[in-house]
Amino acid sequence: MILVFRAGSTNAEVEHAEERLKEIGLKPHTMIGVERTVIAAIGDERVTSAEELANIPGVEKVLPILAPYKLASKEVNPTPSVFEIGGDSLVKPKATKVTFGGAFIPVIAGPCSVESRTQIIEIAHAVKEAGASALRAGAFKPRTSPYQFQGLAEEGLEYLAEAREATGLPIVTEVLTPADVPLVAKYADCLQIGTRNMQNFLLLKACGAVKTPVLLKRGMCATLEEYLLAAEYVLTGGNPRVMLCERGIRTFESYVRNTFALAIVPALKEKTHLPVLADPSHGTGVRSLVPAMTKASIACGADGILIEVHTNPEKALTDGAQTLSVKDFAKLIKECRPIAEAVGRKM
Amino acid sequence: MILVFRAGSTNAEVEHAEERLKEIGLKPHTMIGVERTVIAAIGDERVTSAEELANIPGVEKVLPILAPYKLASKEVNPTPSVFEIGGDSLVKPKATKVTFGGAFIPVIAGPCSVESRTQIIEIAHAVKEAGASALRAGAFKPRTSPYQFQGLAEEGLEYLAEAREATGLPIVTEVLTPADVPLVAKYADCLQIGTRNMQNFLLLKACGAVKTPVLLKRGMCATLEEYLLAAEYVLTGGNPRVMLCERGIRTFESYVRNTFALAIVPALKEKTHLPVLADPSHGTGVRSLVPAMTKASIACGADGILIEVHTNPEKALTDGAQTLSVKDFAKLIKECRPIAEAVGRKM
Amino acid sequence: MILVFRAGSTNAEVEHAEERLKEIGLKPHTMIGVERTVIAAIGDERVTSAEELANIPGVEKVLPILAPYKLASKEVNPTPSVFEIGGDSLVKPKATKVTFGGAFIPVIAGPCSVESRTQIIEIAHAVKEAGASALRAGAFKPRTSPYQFQGLAEEGLEYLAEAREATGLPIVTEVLTPADVPLVAKYADCLQIGTRNMQNFLLLKACGAVKTPVLLKRGMCATLEEYLLAAEYVLTGGNPRVMLCERGIRTFESYVRNTFALAIVPALKEKTHLPVLADPSHGTGVRSLVPAMTKASIACGADGILIEVHTNPEKALTDGAQTLSVKDFAKLIKECRPIAEAVGRKM
Amino acid sequence: MILVFRAGSTNAEVEHAEERLKEIGLKPHTMIGVERTVIAAIGDERVTSAEELANIPGVEKVLPILAPYKLASKEVNPTPSVFEIGGDSLVKPKATKVTFGGAFIPVIAGPCSVESRTQIIEIAHAVKEAGASALRAGAFKPRTSPYQFQGLAEEGLEYLAEAREATGLPIVTEVLTPADVPLVAKYADCLQIGTRNMQNFLLLKACGAVKTPVLLKRGMCATLEEYLLAAEYVLTGGNPRVMLCERGIRTFESYVRNTFALAIVPALKEKTHLPVLADPSHGTGVRSLVPAMTKASIACGADGILIEVHTNPEKALTDGAQTLSVKDFAKLIKECRPIAEAVGRKM
Repeated sequence: MILVFRAGSTNAEVEHAEERLKEIGLKPHTMIGVERTVIAAIGDERVTSAEELANIPGVEKVLPILAPYKLASKEVNPTPSVFEIGGDSLVKPKATKVTFGGAFIPVIAGPCSVESRTQIIEIAHAVKEAGASALRAGAFKPRTSPYQFQGLAEEGLEYLAEAREATGLPIVTEVLTPADVPLVAKYADCLQIGTRNMQNFLLLKACGAVKTPVLLKRGMCATLEEYLLAAEYVLTGGNPRVMLCERGIRTFESYVRNTFALAIVPALKEKTHLPVLADPSHGTGVRSLVPAMTKASIACGADGILIEVHTNPEKALTDGAQTLSVKDFAKLIKECRPIAEAVGRKM
Repeated sequence: MILVFRAGSTNAEVEHAEERLKEIGLKPHTMIGVERTVIAAIGDERVTSAEELANIPGVEKVLPILAPYKLASKEVNPTPSVFEIGGDSLVKPKATKVTFGGAFIPVIAGPCSVESRTQIIEIAHAVKEAGASALRAGAFKPRTSPYQFQGLAEEGLEYLAEAREATGLPIVTEVLTPADVPLVAKYADCLQIGTRNMQNFLLLKACGAVKTPVLLKRGMCATLEEYLLAAEYVLTGGNPRVMLCERGIRTFESYVRNTFALAIVPALKEKTHLPVLADPSHGTGVRSLVPAMTKASIACGADGILIEVHTNPEKALTDGAQTLSVKDFAKLIKECRPIAEAVGRKM
Repeated sequence: MILVFRAGSTNAEVEHAEERLKEIGLKPHTMIGVERTVIAAIGDERVTSAEELANIPGVEKVLPILAPYKLASKEVNPTPSVFEIGGDSLVKPKATKVTFGGAFIPVIAGPCSVESRTQIIEIAHAVKEAGASALRAGAFKPRTSPYQFQGLAEEGLEYLAEAREATGLPIVTEVLTPADVPLVAKYADCLQIGTRNMQNFLLLKACGAVKTPVLLKRGMCATLEEYLLAAEYVLTGGNPRVMLCERGIRTFESYVRNTFALAIVPALKEKTHLPVLADPSHGTGVRSLVPAMTKASIACGADGILIEVHTNPEKALTDGAQTLSVKDFAKLIKECRPIAEAVGRKM
Repeated sequence: MILVFRAGSTNAEVEHAEERLKEIGLKPHTMIGVERTVIAAIGDERVTSAEELANIPGVEKVLPILAPYKLASKEVNPTPSVFEIGGDSLVKPKATKVTFGGAFIPVIAGPCSVESRTQIIEIAHAVKEAGASALRAGAFKPRTSPYQFQGLAEEGLEYLAEAREATGLPIVTEVLTPADVPLVAKYADCLQIGTRNMQNFLLLKACGAVKTPVLLKRGMCATLEEYLLAAEYVLTGGNPRVMLCERGIRTFESYVRNTFALAIVPALKEKTHLPVLADPSHGTGVRSLVPAMTKASIACGADGILIEVHTNPEKALTDGAQTLSVKDFAKLIKECRPIAEAVGRKM
């Protein structure tokens, strides 16, 4: 940590700060400048926090030197994480395995919500045929209004298992609360933690305590650092299979539902070994923009794509405005393949 | 709802839309303009959503007419809600009751976290003497990093109950997850739902299912409408005692931890009958700005103030940078009283 | 400046950086830590910039120690600036002088645009009677669309001078471009630089080259530092009478036209000696919120208030939705006086 | 326009509104709903504005139906604009022409600032060889601080003309103020209007009054609609050759200098016939992210790329942190070509 003192700080304040740093376990290195005194505190600064040190009298600002996350960082773990999804559910038969983090870019497709057995099985077949590697759909739905459709719950999970049985596709589905983790993990191949739960720390811990891989979506106002600290909660729990996913942030822009902040894909890949996916459906919230932004996601290095597809988008119970038809989805996958090849990947 | 069709929409599209609206239970009223066709859909539009109708082929945009919340709205409930806090905990002795929503503006003060029995009892006495009406402190702490102090859990709740016994102050404390609601409600006089949980819908439902009053803080990127819909989740569960609280939003500003968006205080009071509080400590994140922004909160009509106070801010385990000393807090309360009087209130 | 090197930086990189710093005129002070090397560069860091030093090979981040502005800062100029407005126009008769930055809180009121001689004279009389100390109205209007009313230009300035003659109120009016500065300065007592021009650096320089005081509104996405650097442009030109004014920033909030970021008022007053005003009309964009936010502005320490008032808001050619009627304005001023007294000021 | 009345509006209010609409030239079409009265105002709504109608007593909100821009819109002008740049400068010899808006994706490259004759000629040769179609560099620089390098002014323009003579590359350079438009147009092949001047309406008008093509960069907090209205200012002046360019917006993200909001590229291309470029250098502000985001820009449909290149990025006087070396630039162009082909374009 670097502590910058305010102009006119006293010797007593500087000495007091040196004492505090030693107490905490850091070695102070003090420099008296013309306009300001600065202390560089040497040691593992993760024992404290910038906000804690900002309380020391006379300190004007505190500047951290190191990233606050460890297990998620490339410094600790320089090799990109490559791992399989499929095969962890308790409900049989198991899914066909899919590798994330490698040269192949898997597409996870499906409707926003499981609406019925027929709907989900029909869509599972359709997205598989079009080229998807995994099926996503929500059985537990976080909805802005209590008057909106809240999902089919366990019944939806059962239908998802049937869709897996019919197609072999691994199932990615959201879990909303720690108490539901065992239930969802029974059926799912991958637990999705949604944008509104990125800092639901008890849910992160609960997902860290199971073996099922986790797809952790970026919070809609999360910084890069907060996002990697959220992943760190799962990793410190002992679950190494965490995938990240940019899904749009909240800004002043109003022609889209979210601002798709794609530069976080290469930025995350500089800092972390975890696979980084992109979700252009939520990332824009506008169907007509999804194809272009899927292509952009692949071009900038995404390790996987999450996309909403429905056999009848007009009648989708949730998120229809950003959902592709099966036909448009199949066309898009075809168009994306040469882009994947252009960046040395496959789809 | 108002449906605006794209330029060049066909008769078939318009007729199809009319059919869909009737199916849903709305009465279409179609106007053919020179450049666009518009349908006004008459009826209770809460049966559907703008996003659902946006899927109808040919529709360019959908404009809701009514607010999507009901129980929280002043249209349904024009009289301001005035209610007491204190007396609902199972652990005796009970707190002195405090009324929220009336002419008196209660101050809820205390440290960010319960750190020890001594600390919390000492602070409880100090803030009471300085003029606080309730004590707040966290036993369960949502922390950005897994390496930070996570709170004392039930032990912290017990110390809070002792602090209540010692001072009579009602206890406001955070609950993080549905499974903890009964435990926290056993000890607390008011359940705080934090900014990161404003859209933790299962937690909102769990808090709607108990009798303990709820302090629902605004999510750091929540719109006014999303905020009132979150309150609606608690209200529809049957718990009418919900208080709202502005605590800063996330913007590009970097000289503060959050942007204190105080205009939402009078804006909410136009739309809802629920009491609206303000938290200038989190709202700014900067100790030196707290006094001025507390005064601003009172001047613009806040029904209560939430403020972080510690007997030793420098050694506060959490959020020290925004915490007032007891002395500064006592001085601030005195300075606020004439402002409260200037707006026809008391403190 | 503090230079933090990436993990694994080489000796050669560190030595090269030391050389560069000496070239620039700073004295490097190098510390080798376990995980990172850090150089503190001692001296007047305003000779360079963080972005320039970030280019040095091996440097991961650069942290400035000092604020980049000088003349605007309290460190250079600790005494609050108190100065008069009124009397600098070339067109006679001169205005009654008004002091800004002192205990009295002047109100600058008027319509968004000068629409006609009758309109502006009528409003000038009305706002004066209600308690305003200066008249504001635009003759040159920056409008989002080329199809909107663009202002009366010099004709409007003449009407403003007549309104001054009739009432004695000093005139605050916007200047849009460097070439118009002499013309506007001929008529005006104070040059307003609008939010869209806060970083129109040639306009800032042109306003620094005249003697007329300047009201510099905050850019709608300006940081505190950028704002003070904009003021620095005027100050370095030799014009010391600069007033700042918070007028709302652009965020995700949609129930208001802008988010009124009032905490910048006390924050600026910590950093600068310049008077800091607040504009609750643009700050919210919603008429019904203006009274509450005017009160909040005074409570948090604003040195003046800018407010839109019209004798017939419904027919205002611009910004009617945020404009108060004369009656509501007069009522508001009365209600604000006890708040001003509660914070040791007068209105 | 759609006017929605507040609950409980009176007949008199509705009738008054109908009168006002007729006065303005719109035909009111009134619908009495159960909870609200709605008037659809039929006709060319560009004669008024939502903000003007919001002033009518009893009106709660106003919803525009049509986009407020015309000449920029695809509805008025459905064919994509394809035009040449090069050949409009008064200083000879003329540049080689380059077509924008067609299948070929031109790259405009160069340093942030013209620093010297040698520097700019050297860079011009280098970027041409690497595949650039035009040279960009600033002679007039808008700088946040008055203490920073402000550009070489006309001297810089002369060096740019020499660089054009040496390489044939057309020159793109920024103009800061209306008075400089003739001077810059004398030397330049394309006038750049920077992000801070997107709403400098007099500059927009001045650029509309000349024949030189205009590159209008998006304001860092501009909405899509405001952006197209800014273009409309140039177009209504009679200058049809306007190019748009996404360059990053200001959000809460701090790991980048700006948030590169690429979805606006396909979104703009749905609404306007003007070419839409992307600037990944300013769009991220971080050199290491530029290659990935250049690829993303091409993949999502950008009609051209703006990129900062310097022969010695470490010593660039401005914006070095986001500037590519010539070698990295050449490599990037090669890597982009197959992506351009994958989306049916050329580079």
